[in-house]
Amino acid sequence: MLSTTPRTTLGRSKERGSTDRDDLYEVLDTGLICHLGVVVDGHPMVVPTGYGRVGDTLYLHGSTGARSLRTGTGTDVCVTVTHLDGLVLARSIFHHSVNYRSAMIYGPARLVTDEDEREQGLRALAEQLAPGQWDYVRRPSRKELAATAVLALSLEEASVKIRRGGPVDEEEDYDLPVWAGVLPLVMSWGAPEPDSVLPEGIEAPVHILHRE
Amino acid sequence: MLSTTPRTTLGRSKERGSTDRDDLYEVLDTGLICHLGVVVDGHPMVVPTGYGRVGDTLYLHGSTGARSLRTGTGTDVCVTVTHLDGLVLARSIFHHSVNYRSAMIYGPARLVTDEDEREQGLRALAEQLAPGQWDYVRRPSRKELAATAVLALSLEEASVKIRRGGPVDEEEDYDLPVWAGVLPLVMSWGAPEPDSVLPEGIEAPVHILHRE
Repeated sequence: MLSTTPRTTLGRSKERGSTDRDDLYEVLDTGLICHLGVVVDGHPMVVPTGYGRVGDTLYLHGSTGARSLRTGTGTDVCVTVTHLDGLVLARSIFHHSVNYRSAMIYGPARLVTDEDEREQGLRALAEQLAPGQWDYVRRPSRKELAATAVLALSLEEASVKIRRGGPVDEEEDYDLPVWAGVLPLVMSWGAPEPDSVLPEGIEAPVHILHRE
Repeated sequence: MLSTTPRTTLGRSKERGSTDRDDLYEVLDTGLICHLGVVVDGHPMVVPTGYGRVGDTLYLHGSTGARSLRTGTGTDVCVTVTHLDGLVLARSIFHHSVNYRSAMIYGPARLVTDEDEREQGLRALAEQLAPGQWDYVRRPSRKELAATAVLALSLEEASVKIRRGGPVDEEEDYDLPVWAGVLPLVMSWGAPEPDSVLPEGIEAPVHILHRE
């Protein structure tokens, strides 16, 4: 079960809220980037960035010099992951909507200092974006590790919203001679584009060529 | 030209920053949703939501009861629009990256009260997600308009970041027998799915059927 705190209890559209922890994992595990919200000098700042999950911990990373990460450490952050699945085209403008799956996680970001946990977090971050690459390419050197800040965020306080299905129209609008339904949005991987200086004979590995 | 204020001046990866206003328009006009950041009781909150642009004004909307919009009115918000274009697969984990285009807009959100501007904003919001629908379906009634809050955000303070192209590796890593390049991420529209109660004989209009 997901937590219910004042900010994870949906004020509106309660039927779209999910309290199933598996839904949270599904939204997070199938995403590629998140939007990280921090407060800088009292003002909000929303930055797109990578993430990875290990159990009930979300890992974020960045340069040790990045403003958004410096500010976020120890202070409250909000991480939002959104999948846009399609447009819901109704018979009236007012009832237009989108099908989506989104997760919001709130909490203090903890700077990870333990070397094992840092490596675990970085591996999760890499595997989230590009599964298979951690074991395929050169791993981080000591110097590279030192230049990378790893932050951990507990999944304790989280909410999930999901909308699926067709439009819901006003009763009297169903008679309008207007097409209504869903226009699905599909994300897919294109053909891998080799680096211009890649030597001949090096083929893309299966985990890239046949990524789902 | 885009503004340069402390928070729109990039602290890092300056070569990825763009100060071209046309880049800002391109990122915004080709997006579908944004992530709206607000500060609630001192804590950040990041909500995915729709938007529309008219000139140098961005419009957001929501129910008059929505918490994120209530909080945002008159106070500072941050709106971020991100396009993820592909994965940059390098010869080392450290140099893995993503190709993306993102825009961040900062400023106070103004509650729109003028009826003409409210309609203009709502039309821009609808056209952003589903171009052609405003003139095709039933427009908002007086009651529906009253239930919708429209917010305006100036594009005065904005920053754009764009990364394109292949990986940049450490000199000594170019000799590794490792594939490197870009895995493009492609978004496309699926076939329209008619509402289950749609009467026979109503075909999807061209602007939905052949949406680019």
